[in-house]
Amino acid sequence: MLGLMQDQPLLISSLIEHAERHHGDGEIVSRRVEGDVHRYTWRDVARRARQVAVGLDGWGLAAGDRVATLAWNGYRHLELYFGVSGSGRILHTVNPRLHPEQIAWIVNHAEDQALCFDATFLPIVQAIHAKCPTVQHWVLLCEAGKLPPDTGVPGLVSYDAWVDAQPSGYAWPQFDENTASSICYTSGTTGHPKGALYSHRSTVLHAYAAALPDVMSLSARDAVLPVVPMFHVNAWGIPYSAALTGAKLVFPGPALDGKSVYELIEAEQVSYAAGVPTVWQMLLLHMKPAGLRFSSLRRTVIGGSACPPAMIQAFKDDYGVEVLHAWGMTELSPLGTLCTLKNKHLALPPEEQMKLLLKQGRAIFGVDMKIVGADGQDLPHDGKSAGDLLVRGPWVVREYFKGEGGDPLVRDSAGRAWFPTGDVATIDADGFMQITDRSKDVIKSGGEWISSIDVENIAVAHPAVAMAACIGVFHPKWDERPIVVVVKKPGADVSREELLKFYEGRTAKWQIPDDVVFVESIPLGATGKMLKARLREQLKDYRLPGA
Amino acid sequence: MLGLMQDQPLLISSLIEHAERHHGDGEIVSRRVEGDVHRYTWRDVARRARQVAVGLDGWGLAAGDRVATLAWNGYRHLELYFGVSGSGRILHTVNPRLHPEQIAWIVNHAEDQALCFDATFLPIVQAIHAKCPTVQHWVLLCEAGKLPPDTGVPGLVSYDAWVDAQPSGYAWPQFDENTASSICYTSGTTGHPKGALYSHRSTVLHAYAAALPDVMSLSARDAVLPVVPMFHVNAWGIPYSAALTGAKLVFPGPALDGKSVYELIEAEQVSYAAGVPTVWQMLLLHMKPAGLRFSSLRRTVIGGSACPPAMIQAFKDDYGVEVLHAWGMTELSPLGTLCTLKNKHLALPPEEQMKLLLKQGRAIFGVDMKIVGADGQDLPHDGKSAGDLLVRGPWVVREYFKGEGGDPLVRDSAGRAWFPTGDVATIDADGFMQITDRSKDVIKSGGEWISSIDVENIAVAHPAVAMAACIGVFHPKWDERPIVVVVKKPGADVSREELLKFYEGRTAKWQIPDDVVFVESIPLGATGKMLKARLREQLKDYRLPGA
Repeated sequence: MLGLMQDQPLLISSLIEHAERHHGDGEIVSRRVEGDVHRYTWRDVARRARQVAVGLDGWGLAAGDRVATLAWNGYRHLELYFGVSGSGRILHTVNPRLHPEQIAWIVNHAEDQALCFDATFLPIVQAIHAKCPTVQHWVLLCEAGKLPPDTGVPGLVSYDAWVDAQPSGYAWPQFDENTASSICYTSGTTGHPKGALYSHRSTVLHAYAAALPDVMSLSARDAVLPVVPMFHVNAWGIPYSAALTGAKLVFPGPALDGKSVYELIEAEQVSYAAGVPTVWQMLLLHMKPAGLRFSSLRRTVIGGSACPPAMIQAFKDDYGVEVLHAWGMTELSPLGTLCTLKNKHLALPPEEQMKLLLKQGRAIFGVDMKIVGADGQDLPHDGKSAGDLLVRGPWVVREYFKGEGGDPLVRDSAGRAWFPTGDVATIDADGFMQITDRSKDVIKSGGEWISSIDVENIAVAHPAVAMAACIGVFHPKWDERPIVVVVKKPGADVSREELLKFYEGRTAKWQIPDDVVFVESIPLGATGKMLKARLREQLKDYRLPGA
Repeated sequence: MLGLMQDQPLLISSLIEHAERHHGDGEIVSRRVEGDVHRYTWRDVARRARQVAVGLDGWGLAAGDRVATLAWNGYRHLELYFGVSGSGRILHTVNPRLHPEQIAWIVNHAEDQALCFDATFLPIVQAIHAKCPTVQHWVLLCEAGKLPPDTGVPGLVSYDAWVDAQPSGYAWPQFDENTASSICYTSGTTGHPKGALYSHRSTVLHAYAAALPDVMSLSARDAVLPVVPMFHVNAWGIPYSAALTGAKLVFPGPALDGKSVYELIEAEQVSYAAGVPTVWQMLLLHMKPAGLRFSSLRRTVIGGSACPPAMIQAFKDDYGVEVLHAWGMTELSPLGTLCTLKNKHLALPPEEQMKLLLKQGRAIFGVDMKIVGADGQDLPHDGKSAGDLLVRGPWVVREYFKGEGGDPLVRDSAGRAWFPTGDVATIDADGFMQITDRSKDVIKSGGEWISSIDVENIAVAHPAVAMAACIGVFHPKWDERPIVVVVKKPGADVSREELLKFYEGRTAKWQIPDDVVFVESIPLGATGKMLKARLREQLKDYRLPGA
């Protein structure tokens, strides 16, 4: 027997409709690429998102067509979040930090029909437009009349001119909540990037969950600064959860330096900020010498990589700001866990609380997780047993776009399908998960992943290189940086400088390894795979030049 | 194009699985009908809920079969919430405050197969069992071996004995999330009670929404006391939201007097409590003379009827407890709005904030609402225009069980279907809704509805009564009590006392009017309907005897 509740799909358009109807004058403040600070309201976002939808209709884009963005966190990007998905198209957020070749590959794989980009990224567009035949519409996120001359980009239009030309009367279409809403490619560890194709249902459920008190705790009394990028993992879903709760949004644009972020937090009385450790480190480095204080910031959630205990302590003791760890990934929309204490922990001494706060946190309802051994059997949640971390839930991928990489899921004895995260973790009796290793040896630099295999593939493309292993080593600012360990071919020669030079133009600058270490041999396992754990052990006393 | 996220139904069993796996040792504390305080954990709830499911299998109950409860807030009731719905049966929570005749009618209408009841309600069961032929299993919520002798209830079993006899190994079945999960009858204003049939989907979505910071703000750091009954409107969904968040639950059982509630709050360090004004008034009356203070309570949400400003002020000024209004109804699962301030209101002077806090609040995302005039046209959200309040959303009824009352929805020009709440309200520009009247003239006494038409029907059944109108009048404790205004038949006579006596046995005691006012005539409208608004105006100086 079915229930008799109203059949109402969970749609992204319902989020912006709610914000418009019930939080119409709630503020959206953006530091723009233009340099100034722009402010308007949820009512304006809703109106312009409808104009975007009408504009896409005018271009003849069909439901399910992809519209790409290459953009910082800002109000125009927010309009595209709602206008593209709300009208039934698929928003493709592209990470501008990738190499232009990778960007072109991704745009072609997604078959994007339009690409909207910030002026910062004009050089990327100039480099790729000729290689992206599916893109019919190139849109620069700028004011009317402010298009630079002679860009060479065919048919380039100003976003504001395009939007302003559309009527704002538009009724959001109603459709199956399982319809695809957006796509984000993960720069995984093997092969080409793979697209995680989100749905309206997964996005709205994630928006509910992300706003919960034990997750990001968002309300209509918050002013939220997402430093985490909208071009990757949906800025942790903050654009959606802010619309759901009516929170004020404060966008930093491209200015992520300590001074800019601090000034924005103070000027807009930000209560909650989300980011990666690297940005917070720059913020603290700006504040400390000047003796600056926060007047409104109460809470920050840090993800992307583990936050150093000293930083958590500094935020808490010196600035009265609570620091919470989050863990997630592209395939999880992205949030999986958040580290908030339970009632029973509140009476613990600070050092015991800190031990918990250094973990990645507890599963958010909707995500279930477990750890398994090499045989696939469940391991105990005892805080000691480490195993492959598996997750499942309505905002976890089932498969990648176009079936790339085959079926990623593993099935347990009860027939339940789990997504293997590629992380190795422990889970304690209270459900707190802690990442202990990465089964795929990916390197995390400043919150962004670098594929060790990509780095290795370029090295072995050099004529003098026989074998190469890329591993991550500690870096004080970026958390981790790649180095490449190389075995030269017999009789051949290449210098450190020559090999690093060889990377230029073959990958994004920040993905070029920081150093080359020449060795006689790299340890191999029985199946011929490089034993990176043993290699890291051998190089445990290694320090980066200058670090 | 559909998204590629995991297909995972929103099921009530996933809530208890989450609580078991990630909050296993979280406490559930219950003051029992037996008089003592019982404590165990979410792990125990999960185990016993599975045993309930196995027990229902053993009885041969099919998916969709109804299992009724007549019970206070307590751990056994909680086990039934998860065990009955989780296993695919439908939990029917029956309001024991109804007259036994009404209870029998509801049980028969729902075709309940089993009825589980607290010892308090044995007299009700003794009065109705012979009239309820569908009920195959009568279960007293008591310990094994504690069944009273000679109850006269056929085949009566002890709940604990029944549960303890079942194995706890059980895998929750997976099924369509739109499957019916529970039913609650609304004692509406016309005709027979009508059943709101909830689904797993509506319940889980409501559980997410109810836990949000701007709604009940529930986390794993909270200890929650639901004084709002589990036998009606799902205790505002707290049992589900507590499992979702891992909050500690504290159940008051039948002891709702000020002393008992106060002692439980202090002993269990309750941080959040939800109830109706009547219970909080008893609580304050107990605390004030003794100079008592709260050591842990921070927040209380009050619904069912409007909270007097003086009580809000007393909680805030004298006890440091934030009081928030909630509004909802059986047909809304039940939450529709909650009254929390927005960022922009935080700087307002206290008296301006109080004006907002006296309203019923803002729509929770998932519920949309609007007000319409007599012509069905939308009225402005200006805080002044009053109209019929309409709502829609995935936890709002589409129709009643078995189609009773026909199609309750009204459609707007865009084809959207809305549920008319029967309330008349204003909505201001910030989305704050305020109930200004009840279009159906229902009386709310101590948070419970009394149908004016039921009261009138009994009066006119008396041979000496020509016409009767029931209206609500102010009562210092119950907020509102019914009186009946009567026109006698020419030449006939009946005294106040005789008429009140006439109600005994014809309705529940608390539904009997507090007074009878004899008048020469009752004003009638053009279509012959009594004009109650005019009647209330005529009686505006009326005061209840003793009030």
